[in-house]
Amino acid sequence: MDHIRRTERLAAMTRVLVSEPGRSFSLAQFCEAYGAAKSTISEDLDIIRGAMDRFGLGRLETLTGVGGGVRYRVAVDHAEGYRHVRALCERLSGPGRVLPGGLLYLADVIADPEIIGRMGAILASEFVDAAPDFVLTMETQGIPLAMMAAHSLHVPVVIARRSGKAYEGPAVHISYLAGSQFKTMSLSRRLVRPGQRALLVDDVLRSGGTATGMMDLMREFSAEVVGAAMLVGTEEACGRFSHVKALMVLEGVDPSNGAASLRPGDWLLVPE
Amino acid sequence: MDHIRRTERLAAMTRVLVSEPGRSFSLAQFCEAYGAAKSTISEDLDIIRGAMDRFGLGRLETLTGVGGGVRYRVAVDHAEGYRHVRALCERLSGPGRVLPGGLLYLADVIADPEIIGRMGAILASEFVDAAPDFVLTMETQGIPLAMMAAHSLHVPVVIARRSGKAYEGPAVHISYLAGSQFKTMSLSRRLVRPGQRALLVDDVLRSGGTATGMMDLMREFSAEVVGAAMLVGTEEACGRFSHVKALMVLEGVDPSNGAASLRPGDWLLVPE
Repeated sequence: MDHIRRTERLAAMTRVLVSEPGRSFSLAQFCEAYGAAKSTISEDLDIIRGAMDRFGLGRLETLTGVGGGVRYRVAVDHAEGYRHVRALCERLSGPGRVLPGGLLYLADVIADPEIIGRMGAILASEFVDAAPDFVLTMETQGIPLAMMAAHSLHVPVVIARRSGKAYEGPAVHISYLAGSQFKTMSLSRRLVRPGQRALLVDDVLRSGGTATGMMDLMREFSAEVVGAAMLVGTEEACGRFSHVKALMVLEGVDPSNGAASLRPGDWLLVPE
Repeated sequence: MDHIRRTERLAAMTRVLVSEPGRSFSLAQFCEAYGAAKSTISEDLDIIRGAMDRFGLGRLETLTGVGGGVRYRVAVDHAEGYRHVRALCERLSGPGRVLPGGLLYLADVIADPEIIGRMGAILASEFVDAAPDFVLTMETQGIPLAMMAAHSLHVPVVIARRSGKAYEGPAVHISYLAGSQFKTMSLSRRLVRPGQRALLVDDVLRSGGTATGMMDLMREFSAEVVGAAMLVGTEEACGRFSHVKALMVLEGVDPSNGAASLRPGDWLLVPE
């Protein structure tokens, strides 16, 4: 192999670390891949760490143990997270967003990997210290956000279903009240082990029924809920479920032109 | 601002490009962020491009036009893609994977962002030249794979529903035959425009009913299907739907111990 310059190695190593946030790499893997000594790789990692810190692009964590290791962590700082959420609030506040029944049309936002990727990164930054073992969501609209948060956290995304599916194997079913209707939530028994830590993520907090159902479901699995987050919550529901972190608060709806009014969740406010 | 060294800039720029594959950045954005001249940033990008090429870590594409620009493309080479899929086949071939009715238990694999991220990257590499405008999937199990492919391609993921939902607004409904049952598929009218190019992604190809339904649905929207891919297809279905690229082929099932036998899709074979 031709001599590999430090500049090339830095680009390659950054790409490998950033593409799989939260995944641990041993120094030996890098030494082998780039034919470099451990001390050289360590210096490279110091440079990458410094650049991430300096420009607010995430964190490089050093892992102790056999041979040592390193992993990249998504870390969106408060000001940047707030800016992204506020921009999304503005986009959603235009007319024509509100459907009959006062429902907010979100399917296009949920489809957008750039937006949902950023929102997932904000949730991952917020909950990384809660150390969830998995992200739980309820099908269907919450899955993309839950998936991107899970990707950033490097944990599985566990999807509760409306009804049990033969291809999910034995499952736990619970009933929950959503608005004025009883519904069923089902989760494959194999997906969660007792004592695991769950982060709940869903699209909309309205009656709170689904969120409460997900918490009940976790109790059935003897799993611990270490956090809960939503893309949007109504003003009323956000007040009632103050432990749930909604990225956006739906303040109200103007029925005359179908315009909604949204603001970033209070927990996103930049601390003084 | 203190002087920024090339090594720091390389790590920072690689992180920015790689975190949002397919997103275009102007050279001016980098010049401003790192206080460097265009010629300097161009040299940096040449180094990053060279490192990606040399180590098979993706592609850096140069964009012509006002001021010029650049974007990172996920590009898993054939040999690496084949290796990842074969490893997954081996994992799924263990006993206890097969549920009553000969169904394969996949929920844990679908929940794993590392595996699904890689599979999505393989699909993105395969279909990037087909230039899809969006990825279409049918709820629920196909969403994570579709989402990760869409993330790598930097296009939206569009989710067809089993029934119309009030919060999706006006929708197109079609009926399709899945096995021996008629089912309904629904898609919000706002999500697809005539003439757009669709990549179809789903979890399992068995009767081919859902895949055919998704194609019919795209016809209703006057959208063009530019490719179709599945996580797993049965041997029989893969033969019948030869235009669908299944990452894995389910060769058979041993009912005595619940073990499945899978191999990578033939299209993944490394060309001589």
